[in-house]
Amino acid sequence: MLKISGIAASAGIAIAKAFILEHPNYSVEKRTVTDVEAEIAKLDAALAQSQSELESIKERTLQEMGEKKAEIFASHLLILNDPELIDPVKDKIRNEQVNAEFALDETASQFIAMFENMKSEYLQERAADMRDVTKRVLNHLLGLKFMSPAEISEETIVLAEDLTPSDTAQLNRKYVKGFATNIGGRTSHSAIMARSLEIPAVVGTKDVLSQAKSGDLIIVDGLDGEVFVNPSDEVVAEYRQKQQAYEKQREEWRKLRDEATVSTDGVHVELAANIGTPNDVTGVLENGGEGVGLYRTEFLYMGRDKLPSEDVQYNAYKTVLEKMEGKPVVVRTLDIGGDKELPYLDMPKEMNPFLGFRAIRLCLDRQDIFRTQLRALLRASVYGNLRIMFPMIATLGEFREAKAILLEEKAKLASEGVQVSEEIQVGIMVEIPSTAVLADQFAKEVDFFSIGTNDLIQYTMAADRMNERVSYLYQPYNPAILRLIKMVIDAAHANGRWAGMCGEMAGDATAIPLLLGLGLDEFSMSATSILPARSQISKLSRADMEKLAAQALDMQTAEEVVALVQSIEG
Amino acid sequence: MLKISGIAASAGIAIAKAFILEHPNYSVEKRTVTDVEAEIAKLDAALAQSQSELESIKERTLQEMGEKKAEIFASHLLILNDPELIDPVKDKIRNEQVNAEFALDETASQFIAMFENMKSEYLQERAADMRDVTKRVLNHLLGLKFMSPAEISEETIVLAEDLTPSDTAQLNRKYVKGFATNIGGRTSHSAIMARSLEIPAVVGTKDVLSQAKSGDLIIVDGLDGEVFVNPSDEVVAEYRQKQQAYEKQREEWRKLRDEATVSTDGVHVELAANIGTPNDVTGVLENGGEGVGLYRTEFLYMGRDKLPSEDVQYNAYKTVLEKMEGKPVVVRTLDIGGDKELPYLDMPKEMNPFLGFRAIRLCLDRQDIFRTQLRALLRASVYGNLRIMFPMIATLGEFREAKAILLEEKAKLASEGVQVSEEIQVGIMVEIPSTAVLADQFAKEVDFFSIGTNDLIQYTMAADRMNERVSYLYQPYNPAILRLIKMVIDAAHANGRWAGMCGEMAGDATAIPLLLGLGLDEFSMSATSILPARSQISKLSRADMEKLAAQALDMQTAEEVVALVQSIEG
Repeated sequence: MLKISGIAASAGIAIAKAFILEHPNYSVEKRTVTDVEAEIAKLDAALAQSQSELESIKERTLQEMGEKKAEIFASHLLILNDPELIDPVKDKIRNEQVNAEFALDETASQFIAMFENMKSEYLQERAADMRDVTKRVLNHLLGLKFMSPAEISEETIVLAEDLTPSDTAQLNRKYVKGFATNIGGRTSHSAIMARSLEIPAVVGTKDVLSQAKSGDLIIVDGLDGEVFVNPSDEVVAEYRQKQQAYEKQREEWRKLRDEATVSTDGVHVELAANIGTPNDVTGVLENGGEGVGLYRTEFLYMGRDKLPSEDVQYNAYKTVLEKMEGKPVVVRTLDIGGDKELPYLDMPKEMNPFLGFRAIRLCLDRQDIFRTQLRALLRASVYGNLRIMFPMIATLGEFREAKAILLEEKAKLASEGVQVSEEIQVGIMVEIPSTAVLADQFAKEVDFFSIGTNDLIQYTMAADRMNERVSYLYQPYNPAILRLIKMVIDAAHANGRWAGMCGEMAGDATAIPLLLGLGLDEFSMSATSILPARSQISKLSRADMEKLAAQALDMQTAEEVVALVQSIEG
Repeated sequence: MLKISGIAASAGIAIAKAFILEHPNYSVEKRTVTDVEAEIAKLDAALAQSQSELESIKERTLQEMGEKKAEIFASHLLILNDPELIDPVKDKIRNEQVNAEFALDETASQFIAMFENMKSEYLQERAADMRDVTKRVLNHLLGLKFMSPAEISEETIVLAEDLTPSDTAQLNRKYVKGFATNIGGRTSHSAIMARSLEIPAVVGTKDVLSQAKSGDLIIVDGLDGEVFVNPSDEVVAEYRQKQQAYEKQREEWRKLRDEATVSTDGVHVELAANIGTPNDVTGVLENGGEGVGLYRTEFLYMGRDKLPSEDVQYNAYKTVLEKMEGKPVVVRTLDIGGDKELPYLDMPKEMNPFLGFRAIRLCLDRQDIFRTQLRALLRASVYGNLRIMFPMIATLGEFREAKAILLEEKAKLASEGVQVSEEIQVGIMVEIPSTAVLADQFAKEVDFFSIGTNDLIQYTMAADRMNERVSYLYQPYNPAILRLIKMVIDAAHANGRWAGMCGEMAGDATAIPLLLGLGLDEFSMSATSILPARSQISKLSRADMEKLAAQALDMQTAEEVVALVQSIEG
């Protein structure tokens, strides 16, 4: 038996046999071929095998995991049938008299390098897709046996160096009971996916892969960040108990699904969810979300070759509002730019994209885009409880300009005889320090604040949250951050407004006592965090948390604040 | 007579004949040559002519403008004699049988592209140097007549599309009385150089170049941002008067050189200067600086191929301290990274360098570099009034770590028997929002604050100050910025510390009334701004400015604040 420690990335206990996910070595040799047509036939055969494989994986994924997850394989099939990729490969075989593996690898590498160089998130996903497809065809050409995660059909725990976005997209919860990786941290892609899929996971174990082989019995403890390889019967028994205890806790949480979120001293707060697509609403309702605190509309603009029409947007917004049945839905207007690019917008490269031309800055300039979105929102507003939120507001001038455009579109719709709700709240994200510092002035004009901690922390600490060398400065518990949050909440309350939070921090168990104490009205988080948060808050006294927060505000460092919160948990 | 409006970039009035600085078109054609040795001889002749030209310009610059200015031509001479550039050109002529112009242009373009791609400020300067040298040699090869600005030898006003760093480095104050350009703004390179050289300048006129020809009489009004082409005698007379009035005002300012800076109600503040090299101290003393508020030590690390030794640094620090004769000298420890790179440090590319691994973040990691600088500073401390300042401090933990390293080096020096001053103040730049918000906690441990407004504004507004598309958000007068400044000053005073400012804002006539009212103790600015600032402050009542500042702090937008300050100037 071997015990390996890592980072607890997704809660829960899983016990099953190991499935080693190791991508084979696809290095190909260049050979001269004499019979080029035979070589092309070989390629065609490999393409056909890949095609039928992908079709069956896509079908199974559709059945078992839904449309969204199946989309990735639809993309793979498109690439497999794209003459812009396949024709050059065949030309290369013919003109250079080289083997099919080499021709494919060379051609695909060029495309991949080109996509990756463009530094767009969208094109980097295309590069990842193309890499997956190339590997699949190479499997057949080289006679390799590689099982992709989507082909797993018995209960397993996946062990891997790391999981790529393509790997995680293929994980089937029915069979994959947990996973453990060598690298990664709590905010790496694979960790976020594990939490969203509710699969127990431990990441950053450094060497789980070299310590286990396929078929070994594995325990993944996603609560404490431990992995066991071939545990003794006693340990298995112990962890089955821990698993049951956790399941029982989850049962308790599930009972809270239709409850309000109330502290021990009777203070009610609202727990809402962050969503990206109308499909996500199901998860919000299943997890007892009292609203949508952040609908990120960027996904509507991605994965296409032109801007989404007003009607495409209208339908999406209407669907979300209807499904939420009158519960509040805060829709953030387009937050593109920075690390989120749109291939069809032709945005200039910037030296510091996080400090650049993005979100409301871009929308106030490209009013065609902004007005289309606002019209779609206004038209959809009659189907539910819509709240409109502008991102990246740095000055009151920007808010006034954005709101004036909204009112103009509303007036236009009225003159066209289109019905629009009269109850729409109009608020802002507070994610720029200037806006937090000046919140008392903003509160006179906005209907609500939603604090976006991811960016607020990044700007307040002047540390790029994606840059590992300065990640030690990404400090949600720095007293300076807590003070800014307090300024925003106090300003809201002094003016009869509400203040929410839609950054990662809102769902963090360490932050929740502090945020409750600071007076936060709405907490918006991943849907799967809502029930644990409700359970946690129902055991806290707001009056006590106010005292805790007051102590934290007067501390010197983030470490002191964390120790303070941990002392009450003890 | 023609009157053209632009942006007032450097104060003063200049009246002289136009010198049109227009770089010729150096497009070269590729020709096949039969006699390659003759072609090489042609190249050698052009190189020799360029060499003698450069030597005489260098000599004249040395005589008239000093060593620092002459350095650029020393660099040019090095390039001209660099076999790594010249040998490939000759090889190209020989191997490809092409003409010398083409071989030179092609080869140099490759080097320039390579340097520019490296995105290092240092290498971009090398690229600019190489471009200048190539042009000079092409002048001779192509038989063109281009007079570089250094060759101007009668009183002129230079008119240009824009001035490159190389152009401005060659401007001789003795002959160049003023300049006007088509493009640029108040913070563009040419504007900053004009202020530093004290040459009246107007930039951003859009079309001065197409409206004037060589020899036209020109008036440059750097006070109001106007340019006149062939003005009438009346206008010339009027502007001669304006020039005299301005000269008289400068005379008044000069009388303040040895005066203290005191408001009408008797409050004394300190006016210090920002410097980059020991040579700059002369200008500080000539302009009545009461100290050095910011010694940027980066220049010591630039333009070399390895780190500067402890002794090289020690000598520089000692020189500055001695020349300042006991007046305070605030030395900022190395602030490298971001847009300032060192070719020999091999720093990884970052997605958002302004939010990245720079300044104290780098120094706490590369302690070898940091400790060498601290030792040099400590050893030099006995020669004057040294204050050490750490840049980019975001947390108290960073300050404690940096100070602990300083104390370790001090103890080591003591054990080596080296004398170190016991009076060294240790403070921080406040340029990150978290530090401003938590200034009351910092003030318990630091000896002083110096507010770095350039970065503080950039981070607080989340707007890259170099990015033109978001330049509207670079708002020194945003009430949020004023509130952060107030937090810092109040925290300093509550703990018996002093608070200074070393960003652009400290020397800005619109900011000075507000900063005086907020209680700023030390204003550090370009040396040439000191006397006007002293004159301005001597006419202001601090009590009145406190009221003004209180009003500004409660305003909603930067525009309102600017209007408020302008109302008292009216």
